[in-house]
Amino acid sequence: MNDVLVRCDMSVSVDGFVCGLEARQPPFVDDRFHRVTGWQFGDETAQAMVAERLEQAGAYVLGRRMYDSAGEHWSVESPYRKDVFIVTHRAAEDIRLADGTVFHFATDGVPAAIAAAKQACEPGKKVHVSGGASVIQQALAADLIDELHLHVAPVLIGQGTRLFDNLPDRLTELEPDTVVQTPGMTHLSFRINHAQKG
Amino acid sequence: MNDVLVRCDMSVSVDGFVCGLEARQPPFVDDRFHRVTGWQFGDETAQAMVAERLEQAGAYVLGRRMYDSAGEHWSVESPYRKDVFIVTHRAAEDIRLADGTVFHFATDGVPAAIAAAKQACEPGKKVHVSGGASVIQQALAADLIDELHLHVAPVLIGQGTRLFDNLPDRLTELEPDTVVQTPGMTHLSFRINHAQKG
Repeated sequence: MNDVLVRCDMSVSVDGFVCGLEARQPPFVDDRFHRVTGWQFGDETAQAMVAERLEQAGAYVLGRRMYDSAGEHWSVESPYRKDVFIVTHRAAEDIRLADGTVFHFATDGVPAAIAAAKQACEPGKKVHVSGGASVIQQALAADLIDELHLHVAPVLIGQGTRLFDNLPDRLTELEPDTVVQTPGMTHLSFRINHAQKG
Repeated sequence: MNDVLVRCDMSVSVDGFVCGLEARQPPFVDDRFHRVTGWQFGDETAQAMVAERLEQAGAYVLGRRMYDSAGEHWSVESPYRKDVFIVTHRAAEDIRLADGTVFHFATDGVPAAIAAAKQACEPGKKVHVSGGASVIQQALAADLIDELHLHVAPVLIGQGTRLFDNLPDRLTELEPDTVVQTPGMTHLSFRINHAQKG
């Protein structure tokens, strides 16, 4: 299972925010969040990128707040259709949907949730850590991300929740992979070579 | 003079830092800073980008700390060879070098320094706001940047000085311009359309 790759895939503003200040309150999304993430509902190129991402994913990890903010839409079907490990302090029974989604409530922290997702991942697929920012930060700090995909929306937000925050004072070399410009978005991907960590 | 464009051109890590924690002390540079900015001394493509930037510049604005950290190398010649407005609280006489560089010490803040640089700018050239981060932030907050060029080094630094910080809670739409991948660097440029400010 150790050869299962872990991918982080996040949309950010040019100044590095995933959402604005208003998203700190329920429902944890705001107009800045929709501006930054809305490209996924855009043109055919964007749709193809989203489809490729879903196709590559064998299991997911996401934070409780992200689940809570979207979960009411996921009572019958979800975009995941795989095992989804929700990092939370509150234990709960698994929730199985008819579309193949299984929500597991993972109470032992981000590294344990990623390990469980690797176990559940189909061969040849990747574990996707889907956010929010805090889960990504914990996974990066624990050296558990192998691929970093950033979808950069051409906006400055100024204040809000940063994707890269609370990280250790440590230089990590990345390997640039692809750069794709779609109408109104810049998509950058990097590989993290853990052997090069200093 | 109002049609003189103002360009900001900065090197950053993927997580948005211009330097690490050690650069908060004199000499205000550290190994993270050199890792992020070192591409400028790289291959022919990088050299051509730097030459194009210098060729476009008609005057410069930079912060006192940046001048102090590099100024000792600029007693005879500088990379600028134009009027350079140094934002500072300490008034001083202009310093003229034989290579055409004139260092002006601008004590009325960033907007006044940019206005003076526009006056000094040759026709058809741009004012370059060269940093540090605080000067860029003040210029962005005052809506004085027209072009934002980011040179993204494929590293995570975790802690340090952020390029985008202390900005107002305000959505600013940018217009994506160019994306250039050079060995080991990703160069993104954006135009800021001030009419679109909300």
